[in-house]
Amino acid sequence: MGKTRLEAFSDGVIAIIITIMVLELKVPHGEDAHALLPMIPIFLGYVFSFIMVGIYWNNHHHMLHIVHKINGPVLWANLHLLFWLSLIPVTTAWMQESHFASQAVALYGFVLFMASVAWPILAHFLIKIHGNQSELAIAFGEDRKGKISMLMYLLAIPLAFLNVWIAIVLYIAVAVIWFIPDQRIEKNLHHE
Amino acid sequence: MGKTRLEAFSDGVIAIIITIMVLELKVPHGEDAHALLPMIPIFLGYVFSFIMVGIYWNNHHHMLHIVHKINGPVLWANLHLLFWLSLIPVTTAWMQESHFASQAVALYGFVLFMASVAWPILAHFLIKIHGNQSELAIAFGEDRKGKISMLMYLLAIPLAFLNVWIAIVLYIAVAVIWFIPDQRIEKNLHHE
Amino acid sequence: MGKTRLEAFSDGVIAIIITIMVLELKVPHGEDAHALLPMIPIFLGYVFSFIMVGIYWNNHHHMLHIVHKINGPVLWANLHLLFWLSLIPVTTAWMQESHFASQAVALYGFVLFMASVAWPILAHFLIKIHGNQSELAIAFGEDRKGKISMLMYLLAIPLAFLNVWIAIVLYIAVAVIWFIPDQRIEKNLHHE
Amino acid sequence: MGKTRLEAFSDGVIAIIITIMVLELKVPHGEDAHALLPMIPIFLGYVFSFIMVGIYWNNHHHMLHIVHKINGPVLWANLHLLFWLSLIPVTTAWMQESHFASQAVALYGFVLFMASVAWPILAHFLIKIHGNQSELAIAFGEDRKGKISMLMYLLAIPLAFLNVWIAIVLYIAVAVIWFIPDQRIEKNLHHE
Repeated sequence: MGKTRLEAFSDGVIAIIITIMVLELKVPHGEDAHALLPMIPIFLGYVFSFIMVGIYWNNHHHMLHIVHKINGPVLWANLHLLFWLSLIPVTTAWMQESHFASQAVALYGFVLFMASVAWPILAHFLIKIHGNQSELAIAFGEDRKGKISMLMYLLAIPLAFLNVWIAIVLYIAVAVIWFIPDQRIEKNLHHE
Repeated sequence: MGKTRLEAFSDGVIAIIITIMVLELKVPHGEDAHALLPMIPIFLGYVFSFIMVGIYWNNHHHMLHIVHKINGPVLWANLHLLFWLSLIPVTTAWMQESHFASQAVALYGFVLFMASVAWPILAHFLIKIHGNQSELAIAFGEDRKGKISMLMYLLAIPLAFLNVWIAIVLYIAVAVIWFIPDQRIEKNLHHE
Repeated sequence: MGKTRLEAFSDGVIAIIITIMVLELKVPHGEDAHALLPMIPIFLGYVFSFIMVGIYWNNHHHMLHIVHKINGPVLWANLHLLFWLSLIPVTTAWMQESHFASQAVALYGFVLFMASVAWPILAHFLIKIHGNQSELAIAFGEDRKGKISMLMYLLAIPLAFLNVWIAIVLYIAVAVIWFIPDQRIEKNLHHE
Repeated sequence: MGKTRLEAFSDGVIAIIITIMVLELKVPHGEDAHALLPMIPIFLGYVFSFIMVGIYWNNHHHMLHIVHKINGPVLWANLHLLFWLSLIPVTTAWMQESHFASQAVALYGFVLFMASVAWPILAHFLIKIHGNQSELAIAFGEDRKGKISMLMYLLAIPLAFLNVWIAIVLYIAVAVIWFIPDQRIEKNLHHE
């Protein structure tokens, strides 16, 4: 079964997810520059979620690039990942509209956590059909970066109720770790 | 006539259908966790419709995979299927906002029924140009799963007025039947 | 210059146009079946516009299928067509919300007219680079169907102010003419 | 790393950006023709932004056409460009709803300026992996058109506070410069 349509469908869904967030950037009411001030946290929330979804798209691109076949479980593991990514816009919006209330920041972290869980599941089903000696299996390795991310999200969720900024700093930290496309796969590709 | 654009266009439409449903997950009003409670049925409705659309995408993927040519009637049979799928978000929303009122649940079932009717029509026109001995015709077979699904939807629509939960259980039952990508085609592929 | 991206971009835009119209099918307010009654004209408007956009997509598919190269003017002629198609959802919505007021029905006809003008312009620029003896030029021929459509829209626009139903019947008549994918090109393909 | 998915993803995002602007063309309230009058500036704003996004899509198409490989930094430079393009709908909407207030017109210019900055950054990372003697490097050259555009936007932003029409004329002037697909690359292609 070819991977082309899986890529095309994922591209479509991720393109929509990354773009509908912009609908939340509602037109400011006043006509003067002060009307823009309350837009700043909303704008920063948009920037951050844009980068998060961008990271997933980049890594999805990298992972699928070294994959040769897919099957039914992979289709569903991929849809499962897209499901959690699809919740990023609405949880971003709740964070923005609640002025970064604890519950909203924690829920946002929960969605990021679930996406970070969906990622190795997708990798698992792909490795299952490519073998443990496959390029993908070697590139994915022990997935230390992924495990650290999950841990950081798990820490961030309860900490959001103590102080939302701790959670937000942890989210940013995970984004920084992932910002550079997966070195493991990138490195692996250089050896070819 | 190539199938590439048919696949690409269907991917685009299905990607949008599956993603605009998330727009219905409106930002909760309060800032505390109680604000999330009324979100639960809405969320479950989203999960279910996401899975339903996902099932159609997976099966569309499987069916088009073993198809070699298309023609005008196939284009329209495909658009007809996409038409009914495009009504899933709005009927999901009505179910959610009416707190699962009988009429809304019945209408949702009607849309699912029409989509389940559109599916064998698409198969019919594809088989017509591929022949009764084609891989597709053999894989599609008597379509027992499809016929059972239609029957279950037909039962569910009037039963929704008796008790909505009977209808909902029937919808879930159909989803469970289809969750696994079409075994007939999958099995057929294994013989290659 | 390859036509792949032109097709992919057009597929994306048309997929979005055909799907955002569904957003206008707002959730009915009441919970009983009467709430659905005012939805009927809105629903029929959706069905009609869905078919119109579907016709354009099918014909776009047919036309691009027998085309081998594109250039700058073709890109813009294509964007020009997409521009007018993009106005179908908003004019459909105005028709629906004004309960088919004369002005709204006339404006809808104007958008359909402009799209029907954009179509031969796109064909013209494609024929320019493929030559008068090209498959496309022969298939396009004198474009009688296109000219009749334009005339019917031109008639329908003023007639909408006399009686909206005359205009609506004319729109439906054009749709019926075009419903079948372009016979000229289809026939031509059969000779191959 | 193949450029196919980069193109497909960009096509998806740009298709959505160009189409969601139409959602701002809200249904006019009255039923008579006067209801359309306040729509005229909104419509012209839509036309202009449609053309601007169309220019970017055309040039993206041209640039990627002569590119053979991509890497991580290119993916991010491309996402960076898409980010600024994604802000065109919301700033267009603010201009429209504020009846072209100075701040809104200036902010729109700022977004256009940032997109015009993102463009040579993307070119830079592409040239970096293709070499200074590559077709792309030669076609891109000194990018005089790009530098003039940036300068005109930089001028337009403060001038919007003096008189919004000066800024708007400058925006239109830049669009006119770019309307024709990049002559440098087009010319270059003719030499092949």
